[in-house]
Amino acid sequence: MKIITTIADVPPKTSRRVLVPTMGALHRAHGELMRAARQHDDEVAVSIFVNPLQFEPGSDFERYPRPEKEDEEFCRKYDVDLLFRPEPNEMYLEDRSTFVDETALAQTLEGKSRPGHFRGVCTVVAKLFNILQPDVAMFGEKDFQQLAIIRRMVRDLSYKIDIVAVPTVREEDGLAFSSRNRYLNADERKQAPVIRKALLAAAEKKDVDLARKIIGEAPLARIDYVDLVDAETLQPIESVRPNSLIAAAVFFGKTRLIDNIHLS
Amino acid sequence: MKIITTIADVPPKTSRRVLVPTMGALHRAHGELMRAARQHDDEVAVSIFVNPLQFEPGSDFERYPRPEKEDEEFCRKYDVDLLFRPEPNEMYLEDRSTFVDETALAQTLEGKSRPGHFRGVCTVVAKLFNILQPDVAMFGEKDFQQLAIIRRMVRDLSYKIDIVAVPTVREEDGLAFSSRNRYLNADERKQAPVIRKALLAAAEKKDVDLARKIIGEAPLARIDYVDLVDAETLQPIESVRPNSLIAAAVFFGKTRLIDNIHLS
Repeated sequence: MKIITTIADVPPKTSRRVLVPTMGALHRAHGELMRAARQHDDEVAVSIFVNPLQFEPGSDFERYPRPEKEDEEFCRKYDVDLLFRPEPNEMYLEDRSTFVDETALAQTLEGKSRPGHFRGVCTVVAKLFNILQPDVAMFGEKDFQQLAIIRRMVRDLSYKIDIVAVPTVREEDGLAFSSRNRYLNADERKQAPVIRKALLAAAEKKDVDLARKIIGEAPLARIDYVDLVDAETLQPIESVRPNSLIAAAVFFGKTRLIDNIHLS
Repeated sequence: MKIITTIADVPPKTSRRVLVPTMGALHRAHGELMRAARQHDDEVAVSIFVNPLQFEPGSDFERYPRPEKEDEEFCRKYDVDLLFRPEPNEMYLEDRSTFVDETALAQTLEGKSRPGHFRGVCTVVAKLFNILQPDVAMFGEKDFQQLAIIRRMVRDLSYKIDIVAVPTVREEDGLAFSSRNRYLNADERKQAPVIRKALLAAAEKKDVDLARKIIGEAPLARIDYVDLVDAETLQPIESVRPNSLIAAAVFFGKTRLIDNIHLS
């Protein structure tokens, strides 16, 4: 496995390349992305970059986990060919002034709760695409809105890149894998699966309020949003219909977890 | 010469590719870009696309000249390998929502006079870069601010593309070649070289007001701006210093012409 830390050292492609962009703190869901990548193409590249631009002020950029050695071993285990792990000052100059904005899908859900978040995501993903020039890139469905926005960006900016969605990977109790799960204390961890339970119940009864009610009953949970949107446009809708999405963001203490359920 | 009108038909590179992005209505200055391109690399690609996104409302998008046959012949004459000439509906879907914005250099001069112009320029150039994947791209110095913004975009978004600047090409009387010169009636055409004369005089005397005064004396000229900026940051400065730029935009009737002089 080649480990590259500077943009200039990224080797040109010698075959098709598939990219798994990550912020590190790798876990089983990243493993699924890498496994799926391995099936797709000849060269598997993983990027690890905790992107300051997608953390809104006051969020967890500083404390975001950065277990370098473990992440490196994880990539080796999954037979990654190229690990691109730049420092922030390699990716962003102080006088940077160019940004990529998606202006429609980014208006709701995470985009509403985290101003500037998707500008950061789009800008860094565009950079990673330009630096690594993948033919395919893998994204997880837990970040449903991110996936939709990246697909839109690829379409609108005419990137010749196939975006592949990988289903959300869950713990046995239903909690979606997330690098942020490690912030949870024991009590929070015990209650966190309520998000999944609530979304399943809401989907079954076609009743978003039910999800809010169920999450509200967990004493350590504080709802940021539980919203029903059209899964195509991500705009709010009044009642469940074909191709709806219920998406939730819930705090446990300082830890903010997201999940969603797609009603197709 | 291959003529390509759809994105899907753009052939992959078989050698290094140099791109000359244009809006057509080709003239001698475009010829210089093509000649310089031919010296640079193996395959010369020219794009012709009158980009609706960079025309602010009320400007000359509709009447912008589109002499298809002449442009095609022009490219053949300059030994172009690939002419990419998409229609607007090939480049932009109705629900497009992703844009590239440069937020510092675009604040002054053309960016101030033409709101949204550089968003349109950056977005279309990013698309052309993604579609054609050039190794080198050529831009003219007449559009000094555009050149600076494209360089910034390439740096900030990590495009692996060399941006090459080509000096402004002028008529014998000093008027910079522009596709918009053909809008000028005989009287306007006769007075239009005043822009160049004024900029030369101002540069010599280090006196921007002098340029305003000289242009003001041409009866058909109406100044949009004549501004002194730092040539690096494009921010306004009080007096001429090393690496300054005097840039002007002047109307003759409905026709808006720009030019600049770099004091290095």
